[in-house]
Amino acid sequence: MSTPAPRAVHIIGTGLIGTSIGLALRRSDIAVTLEDRDADVLGAAIERGAGTAADEATAPDLVVVAVPPGSVGEAMAAAAGRWTQATVTDVASVKARPLATALGAGADPTRLVGGHPMAGRETTGPAGARADLFEDRAWVVTPTPEASPASRARVAGLVEACGAVPVVMAPEDHDAAVAVTSHLPQLLASALAARLLAVSDDAVRVSGQGLADMTRIADSDADLWTAILEANADPVGRVLDALIGDLVGWREALRAEPMAAEEVRAALARGAEGRDRVPGKHGARQAQYAVVPVLVRDEPGELARLVVATGDLGVNLEDIRIEHVLGRPSGLIELSVREDVGPTLVEGLRSRGFDVRA
Amino acid sequence: MSTPAPRAVHIIGTGLIGTSIGLALRRSDIAVTLEDRDADVLGAAIERGAGTAADEATAPDLVVVAVPPGSVGEAMAAAAGRWTQATVTDVASVKARPLATALGAGADPTRLVGGHPMAGRETTGPAGARADLFEDRAWVVTPTPEASPASRARVAGLVEACGAVPVVMAPEDHDAAVAVTSHLPQLLASALAARLLAVSDDAVRVSGQGLADMTRIADSDADLWTAILEANADPVGRVLDALIGDLVGWREALRAEPMAAEEVRAALARGAEGRDRVPGKHGARQAQYAVVPVLVRDEPGELARLVVATGDLGVNLEDIRIEHVLGRPSGLIELSVREDVGPTLVEGLRSRGFDVRA
Repeated sequence: MSTPAPRAVHIIGTGLIGTSIGLALRRSDIAVTLEDRDADVLGAAIERGAGTAADEATAPDLVVVAVPPGSVGEAMAAAAGRWTQATVTDVASVKARPLATALGAGADPTRLVGGHPMAGRETTGPAGARADLFEDRAWVVTPTPEASPASRARVAGLVEACGAVPVVMAPEDHDAAVAVTSHLPQLLASALAARLLAVSDDAVRVSGQGLADMTRIADSDADLWTAILEANADPVGRVLDALIGDLVGWREALRAEPMAAEEVRAALARGAEGRDRVPGKHGARQAQYAVVPVLVRDEPGELARLVVATGDLGVNLEDIRIEHVLGRPSGLIELSVREDVGPTLVEGLRSRGFDVRA
Repeated sequence: MSTPAPRAVHIIGTGLIGTSIGLALRRSDIAVTLEDRDADVLGAAIERGAGTAADEATAPDLVVVAVPPGSVGEAMAAAAGRWTQATVTDVASVKARPLATALGAGADPTRLVGGHPMAGRETTGPAGARADLFEDRAWVVTPTPEASPASRARVAGLVEACGAVPVVMAPEDHDAAVAVTSHLPQLLASALAARLLAVSDDAVRVSGQGLADMTRIADSDADLWTAILEANADPVGRVLDALIGDLVGWREALRAEPMAAEEVRAALARGAEGRDRVPGKHGARQAQYAVVPVLVRDEPGELARLVVATGDLGVNLEDIRIEHVLGRPSGLIELSVREDVGPTLVEGLRSRGFDVRA
């Protein structure tokens, strides 16, 4: 059974996400109007075909607030006041605080249903927008108990029209989740990377893929992340508190004479167990892939030869990883494939003369 | 000027690293003898061609101790006592404590020169060994002031014969470096991943690539890492202490009412600055790559078509990344190339009909 789609959607904020929603909705016959306080940004979104400019006659049944995190609550309240029959949703990565702000500003609680599409790109702005940005992605929907069935249905229709997979959670549960799965990792990457400022050039040379992985997200946008952390300061503070407690435990174990080896081993084992919960194939537990390492010459065309051979063997690559040595590609390529086809790949590549290191 | 190679090398411990060193040395005319307390492991290494079994007549000028981290110091002292003219080196990932143990057991300080090849593989044991495992990798050498010139020269010759790049550091500096660049990242990955044990199934679904990156190394071998952390407990304790101090600062900033946004922004900016120090191309600062996102159909052969087209354009791939959505490949491939060839790649791929998302 298909969810009834909203009839007319108004999008406030035509950046990457707002414009992508417009493009996604325009694939069906949903009327989309747009607004942005920056006329150039609005113009670019209209030019992309994401919708038309709003006017006095605009009467949406659903308003999507897609403005920067710090302004979401006020914008939701303003939208709910402006269109007194419309459901108002948003796309911010934090849910409880903007909702509280909107309610505090007098917004009708029956018409507010928050949302958080788990999609994004390195780029920003309407130029990077895509109609299929949300295809098969999780889209968290966070209705409160006060939200009306009609409002829930409209937001569900929006998610469906965008091709996303709805995940319904309470706003507080969403925020506690992203505090652990997104905001704490960002904070730890930044804190770890900042520690590198205190060491010598030689010291940072003595590092491997682990450090590269663990600091990759540390060059994220500081302004955006300040706003995100501000909007979710309480849940992040709580989980950071818990983590600091864990790290103090580690420190005590390390400082004991002799080191409390059993405690350290148990903490490492808990980490391995937790890693096992990181989402994998189709949202299930991490898929167990076979990793097939292959050494190729560091020349253009060599990687292509390998990937072509893999395709010729009928094997689908789940992931590919180029190992880096002192920061440069080493020629060691790790192919991740479904476990059952691992042996096929190893034998097939060897028979084609590849230097398989499995 | 080539460093004079050692004449006869004896390797104690024929696991992955010990056997790989044997294989590397046998490419030249260095005599290599092997021992391992596990006869099967020794037999496999000999069968791989890494050297011959030691006997009464074995008289090495260089002994390489390649045993597990917890036993290195004792094994170095024993080797120095057994061959009173030989230089003794090791390959452990921690340097000061094993050296102190060896000296405490009466080893001659003029003949001890520690080493740490920055190479490894997912596999262990002689079966995974490779003659070129160390090719172009950093190999940290940690002589003390007491080490004789002859001993330094022999270890330098070993590094050169293995094709590695020597990086000379004091043992304590090495250990402080790996505490930050390797041991702290491991500990943080484990601590972060362990936090996932406290959240619901839905909560862990709401996560992205950041969490996957930040927990990847959390499933490392708990026994091995317990031994590594034990051997480097003091330096790791110190840097963990500093990090906890930083995190307490984050927590205070988050808990302030309103959040201390300037402090948070500054901490994020320090992280971005530190990230910039992570080694890049040829050991220099992180190379600035152009990242070209391309959407391909999730079918065998599609990735191959893309990689082949890249090669045809004469563009060398520095890195390739398959984005995962809810744990499965999304069809979005990110190609990293030198910045100056980015536009060539974008235009070339587009003209070949690829869906470039730049």
